[in-house]
Amino acid sequence: MLQKIWEQLENYYDEMVEIRRYLHQRPELSFKEYKTAQYIISFYEKLGIQVTGNVGGNGVVAKITGGKPGKTVALRADFDALPIQDEKEVDYKSKVPGVMHACGHDGHTATLLILAKVINEYKEDLSGNFVFIHQHAEESNPGGAKAMIEAGCLENVDAIFGTHLWVTLPTGTVSYKSGPMMAAADEFKVKIQGQGGHGAQPHKTKDSLVTASQLVINLQQIVSRKVNPIHNAVLTVGYFESGNAFNVIADTATIGGTVRTFNLETQALIKEELERVIKGTCYTANSTYEFEYDDGYPAVVNHSEETSFLARCAENIPGVLVQEGEPELTGEDFSYYLQHVKGTFFFTGAMPDTNGLTYPHHHPRFDINEKAMLIAAKTLGSVAVNYNLTFSEEETNTIKIS
Amino acid sequence: MLQKIWEQLENYYDEMVEIRRYLHQRPELSFKEYKTAQYIISFYEKLGIQVTGNVGGNGVVAKITGGKPGKTVALRADFDALPIQDEKEVDYKSKVPGVMHACGHDGHTATLLILAKVINEYKEDLSGNFVFIHQHAEESNPGGAKAMIEAGCLENVDAIFGTHLWVTLPTGTVSYKSGPMMAAADEFKVKIQGQGGHGAQPHKTKDSLVTASQLVINLQQIVSRKVNPIHNAVLTVGYFESGNAFNVIADTATIGGTVRTFNLETQALIKEELERVIKGTCYTANSTYEFEYDDGYPAVVNHSEETSFLARCAENIPGVLVQEGEPELTGEDFSYYLQHVKGTFFFTGAMPDTNGLTYPHHHPRFDINEKAMLIAAKTLGSVAVNYNLTFSEEETNTIKIS
Amino acid sequence: MLQKIWEQLENYYDEMVEIRRYLHQRPELSFKEYKTAQYIISFYEKLGIQVTGNVGGNGVVAKITGGKPGKTVALRADFDALPIQDEKEVDYKSKVPGVMHACGHDGHTATLLILAKVINEYKEDLSGNFVFIHQHAEESNPGGAKAMIEAGCLENVDAIFGTHLWVTLPTGTVSYKSGPMMAAADEFKVKIQGQGGHGAQPHKTKDSLVTASQLVINLQQIVSRKVNPIHNAVLTVGYFESGNAFNVIADTATIGGTVRTFNLETQALIKEELERVIKGTCYTANSTYEFEYDDGYPAVVNHSEETSFLARCAENIPGVLVQEGEPELTGEDFSYYLQHVKGTFFFTGAMPDTNGLTYPHHHPRFDINEKAMLIAAKTLGSVAVNYNLTFSEEETNTIKIS
Amino acid sequence: MLQKIWEQLENYYDEMVEIRRYLHQRPELSFKEYKTAQYIISFYEKLGIQVTGNVGGNGVVAKITGGKPGKTVALRADFDALPIQDEKEVDYKSKVPGVMHACGHDGHTATLLILAKVINEYKEDLSGNFVFIHQHAEESNPGGAKAMIEAGCLENVDAIFGTHLWVTLPTGTVSYKSGPMMAAADEFKVKIQGQGGHGAQPHKTKDSLVTASQLVINLQQIVSRKVNPIHNAVLTVGYFESGNAFNVIADTATIGGTVRTFNLETQALIKEELERVIKGTCYTANSTYEFEYDDGYPAVVNHSEETSFLARCAENIPGVLVQEGEPELTGEDFSYYLQHVKGTFFFTGAMPDTNGLTYPHHHPRFDINEKAMLIAAKTLGSVAVNYNLTFSEEETNTIKIS
Repeated sequence: MLQKIWEQLENYYDEMVEIRRYLHQRPELSFKEYKTAQYIISFYEKLGIQVTGNVGGNGVVAKITGGKPGKTVALRADFDALPIQDEKEVDYKSKVPGVMHACGHDGHTATLLILAKVINEYKEDLSGNFVFIHQHAEESNPGGAKAMIEAGCLENVDAIFGTHLWVTLPTGTVSYKSGPMMAAADEFKVKIQGQGGHGAQPHKTKDSLVTASQLVINLQQIVSRKVNPIHNAVLTVGYFESGNAFNVIADTATIGGTVRTFNLETQALIKEELERVIKGTCYTANSTYEFEYDDGYPAVVNHSEETSFLARCAENIPGVLVQEGEPELTGEDFSYYLQHVKGTFFFTGAMPDTNGLTYPHHHPRFDINEKAMLIAAKTLGSVAVNYNLTFSEEETNTIKIS
Repeated sequence: MLQKIWEQLENYYDEMVEIRRYLHQRPELSFKEYKTAQYIISFYEKLGIQVTGNVGGNGVVAKITGGKPGKTVALRADFDALPIQDEKEVDYKSKVPGVMHACGHDGHTATLLILAKVINEYKEDLSGNFVFIHQHAEESNPGGAKAMIEAGCLENVDAIFGTHLWVTLPTGTVSYKSGPMMAAADEFKVKIQGQGGHGAQPHKTKDSLVTASQLVINLQQIVSRKVNPIHNAVLTVGYFESGNAFNVIADTATIGGTVRTFNLETQALIKEELERVIKGTCYTANSTYEFEYDDGYPAVVNHSEETSFLARCAENIPGVLVQEGEPELTGEDFSYYLQHVKGTFFFTGAMPDTNGLTYPHHHPRFDINEKAMLIAAKTLGSVAVNYNLTFSEEETNTIKIS
Repeated sequence: MLQKIWEQLENYYDEMVEIRRYLHQRPELSFKEYKTAQYIISFYEKLGIQVTGNVGGNGVVAKITGGKPGKTVALRADFDALPIQDEKEVDYKSKVPGVMHACGHDGHTATLLILAKVINEYKEDLSGNFVFIHQHAEESNPGGAKAMIEAGCLENVDAIFGTHLWVTLPTGTVSYKSGPMMAAADEFKVKIQGQGGHGAQPHKTKDSLVTASQLVINLQQIVSRKVNPIHNAVLTVGYFESGNAFNVIADTATIGGTVRTFNLETQALIKEELERVIKGTCYTANSTYEFEYDDGYPAVVNHSEETSFLARCAENIPGVLVQEGEPELTGEDFSYYLQHVKGTFFFTGAMPDTNGLTYPHHHPRFDINEKAMLIAAKTLGSVAVNYNLTFSEEETNTIKIS
Repeated sequence: MLQKIWEQLENYYDEMVEIRRYLHQRPELSFKEYKTAQYIISFYEKLGIQVTGNVGGNGVVAKITGGKPGKTVALRADFDALPIQDEKEVDYKSKVPGVMHACGHDGHTATLLILAKVINEYKEDLSGNFVFIHQHAEESNPGGAKAMIEAGCLENVDAIFGTHLWVTLPTGTVSYKSGPMMAAADEFKVKIQGQGGHGAQPHKTKDSLVTASQLVINLQQIVSRKVNPIHNAVLTVGYFESGNAFNVIADTATIGGTVRTFNLETQALIKEELERVIKGTCYTANSTYEFEYDDGYPAVVNHSEETSFLARCAENIPGVLVQEGEPELTGEDFSYYLQHVKGTFFFTGAMPDTNGLTYPHHHPRFDINEKAMLIAAKTLGSVAVNYNLTFSEEETNTIKIS
């Protein structure tokens, strides 16, 4: 059965590429993916598959019921694009100025649509049910996942799987990671209120620019001294703004940045230390501050057994190399799904055939190796089809993987 | 004679105020003071005084020859305004949006014009010659003084005197200072070239924002450790720009600021240390930099005997309190005149009668006490008239003031 | 068979405690463990077990040949003590002033001696050969392991196992960790050569104390910005010495510390960055430096299959709780054995029954829960006996643990 | 008269050298100058001059009454030595191990003794009275001046003068400075209480060494940002002690240093900022501190008219070059005398004839040019003799020097 599904996916590869390129030329920003959502809905409607739009925003959910009873597996693909000007020189380049599918979500969507089409063709022979979650707004906090879950997209779902096409991994690779895999990505902002004045009279001022510089330096000690060295974390200051004249000391300085962590304990520690360092640094400078901290997506924490299951599924696909990956400090709102149901998120290598020159995700010249979509589809297809075989009963026979 | 001049200045006080308020409503930015220059020229022409325009730019120079032979004394007033929106609530408020006489140069001009008018009336009884230098563009480097000097405004001049109406000194005060009185005011800019990247992957970047913050902190040690503690100096970083997204590490960071010194040795030391600290900080961060350093106006260094002469002249004016001042770290291009001829620059107290609430120079609500103009005129008048009495021969009888 | 060995170990528990307390009262410093080595040799000689002393120093190696052919398993225990004054109040307190078994090596030794005695009793029924490595000098670089290996202690050995009694883990626990488990522990020292002088004349000096302070701060950025956030590392400055008078600026400042890493790439990166930061910081301060970096023990990297094997062996011991541990940033020269043969190092919980008050390793009041020795002996015994059953042929049947 | 005194001083020059070298070989530490005090007393007793010992400690005061009535002038010389090992190779080298006249106080004493001897010879022709203050313990806080004043040494004294032989000034020079001339020299100490631990586990500690390093860096901003740039000040950290093992994080770090200022306002500002910066830095690090601040000698502030008088007196001595000096950031307890009576302290150039190689004060190879003693004696002699001529009446005719 699986063999047939894989073959059919190969048969539809050209259509998959066509869909991806069609979407690539018509990227839409997070929370504004109206036409893309409509495109997805139409695709399902033409095939007679049950589909619902406007799920928690622009989200789309399609459902296929297998011929035999069983558990329900959800597969997720996101479909929003980024505010980046496409600088590639290909004929499927973005037609929308300043907007670009620079992260591969177009590929995710094409992969899932074709997979749904194939599963639909073989549904009578399959056990259980299949939910296709097309999520909007992954790129922008608060993201679409949370709202789609609140709108019920995970109702009756037993497990969820998703993948990201990943251009820094060779095409042909599937990378899994049990436990923490992608980081919580929070945002903070600090405005230091000093007292401005003439650049020649520092003694009459509270030099907010120097205070903010000191703060940036002091913040380095949180990761170097306060975080448990075996708990990975990042604290980056991304912007610094103060003053606009060479001979004037500015009233205020503003910095902002991001905190990345894999567990709540470390996240809480960094929040607490951030406030302490800010407060102490401003006390030292006899200045005051405003501090904002916004929790971003939580960490993607993959479930152990589903991850092991995913790895075994992928290993059985001819030509696929399966490897354990390292955690990534980047964020993903797939994390929300995993807080509600079991599942795993994995990377599908999508490095282009470009002699080692690979433009990273979010780069104006980013592109994927389209063949990776076929591997992603086969892997997700295997997971969907095998799930009811493996996790049928009370999960007593599952292997144990640390 | 001096008594008569003082009395006549008092008689013309209303006109002085009128001129000042006329100019106050019609401020012009540095190097664009076309109408103000024309106004000054017309004033002299109406009185039949010899006047030349377009001296080194918009500069104006008028000359009066005394009835008896003698040395030539120059008096200088600047007449440009600032790019500041006038926020005062007075009927002589600036009529030009975003431009304002926020430093008192309108008062300087009114003072000098009326003084010239009076000297012209008594010229037959006076010894020597009188040059009235109306300088454009004091507020903006490279300033007008240098160009006016190159255009010949100091030709045959034996000594020069000038004053600044100073609102942080009580009206009625004249403040003198021999030697260094106002600082050299230089400008620098540093662009740090790191390597940008994702905020979650600092190890793949060279974090220019952190490097620039470290640089700001390291620069503090120049004044605290490297400058001779008895040689006053300031090094201020006025602006800091890096990044514009919380989760992206920026390629570059740019800072800029000002260096204030009173002698060439300290200035040279700071320049050298600045480059050393920048170079070492960037080496530490494996980054590169671009460094620009522009010499601003040199320090105003008053000549000892002329300063002592000025103090004695002022002490003889009834109701004037003369005091020795401390050096100011602000800059003035009067310094250039003093590099060519002897003379002194002094402050004339111009604090408004406002119960202690005084808006500083360059503030949107800045205003002067107009009565200070009369004191400035009397003092400059005394200097002009007495100069030939005091410095007539070989300067043998001058008092010596350390 | 295993059951009998466990029972016999229990029978000899009192002797085990006796040996441990005998050694506890007679601690010897690293590389000076002459009497302890002789004690161990005598123990084996009395039992007629083949034993060799002076292996790579004070090391002792004993060998027992099983009744059936098979592979050779080595078990290791270290036996040196620390330069710490014993402050415990027990009757087996150290009798040597300033020297103390403050890390549990006395317990390691007692455990291994009794285990050897039991294995010797049952040797006819056992497969393979057993090597008992009593290692000197674990506490002090370059350690005893390297020299013992060079002296041949691992000849014909197929696998090695070792444990550390660990007081921060509850007694009854065995903690395993595949891959990096204990860190490489390097040492560095930096002497900054500035130029001293009077505290009132900083401008005539190069203030080495300020430069070293700046260096300490700059070094924080190595872990916070340069090390890959998912690769654990520590850089600690342990001492700082500069100056001895409040009013004198010292010529030099000396700092030193430790670098902890789990892989060679990160270790090399930190070494390189350390030198860069030192060089750049000293350039900034116009000063010079001397920099020493000594590699300590490499990271303990446990082999995957042997670790899984150890975990399964321990799970079968009644009353033992087996758990996966987190890596420790402390160091161990067991790492050298694992560079030559397969094996694993694990922690045996040895927390005293003291209502939560546990003195950490290297503390003057450190003590172990002696019952932990029995658990260690049983676990090592299981490993020794089962090894030939599990890894008998070409390792085809081993489970796979990621 | 003055001419005769100068000549007689020259006649006694050999004896002056003899006395100086005698004392140079017998240096005594501050507050322990018993034999030196006795030597001075004996000298006066032999000449029949009224002398009192044990004035406020080891201080000695001699008095000579002139033949004509007049005001009373005090002259002061200090006589303690330093805890430095004499490394010079001269036959008058210190005979006391570890103790040395490395600051010239032996020369001060010889100068004053011979001057008293000469004045005694001519006393009948002189107006007024002469007080010779031989002060102990200038080198060590709280100094001898304060106690001698409290013991009455300034009773009936109208003015006081003193000099320091100064080897960085060419011999033949006398340097005066009105107003602030030598700085207030305070001492501070900060002990930071963090929480120690293993160097591999920074997250379990509060790293006092890093906190103290940060404090040293933060303190730089006091001089660079908080002190008025025209008010000279120094803040130097002289020592830093933390930790003694490379792999242990220490509980505490201790730093200490000196603050130098010329006015009370700046001194108060720095004290306040010091505490603020310490408090804020420790808050940032979640640590506590102990802070001690000890006021040292206040600034030496010379009186204007007496300084001008001194300068004129010196100018009249053949072969002496008189110049205005810059303030020194070093300290002197001569400051206390000037808080009670008018007077001035000046430098007498004492640079050796050594081709430019001059060892600074407090150096193990320090030596003076002994001819400078003669110049010092002549200058002090002129001041003593002329004082009653110049300041006879109500000080109406004194010149005014700013």
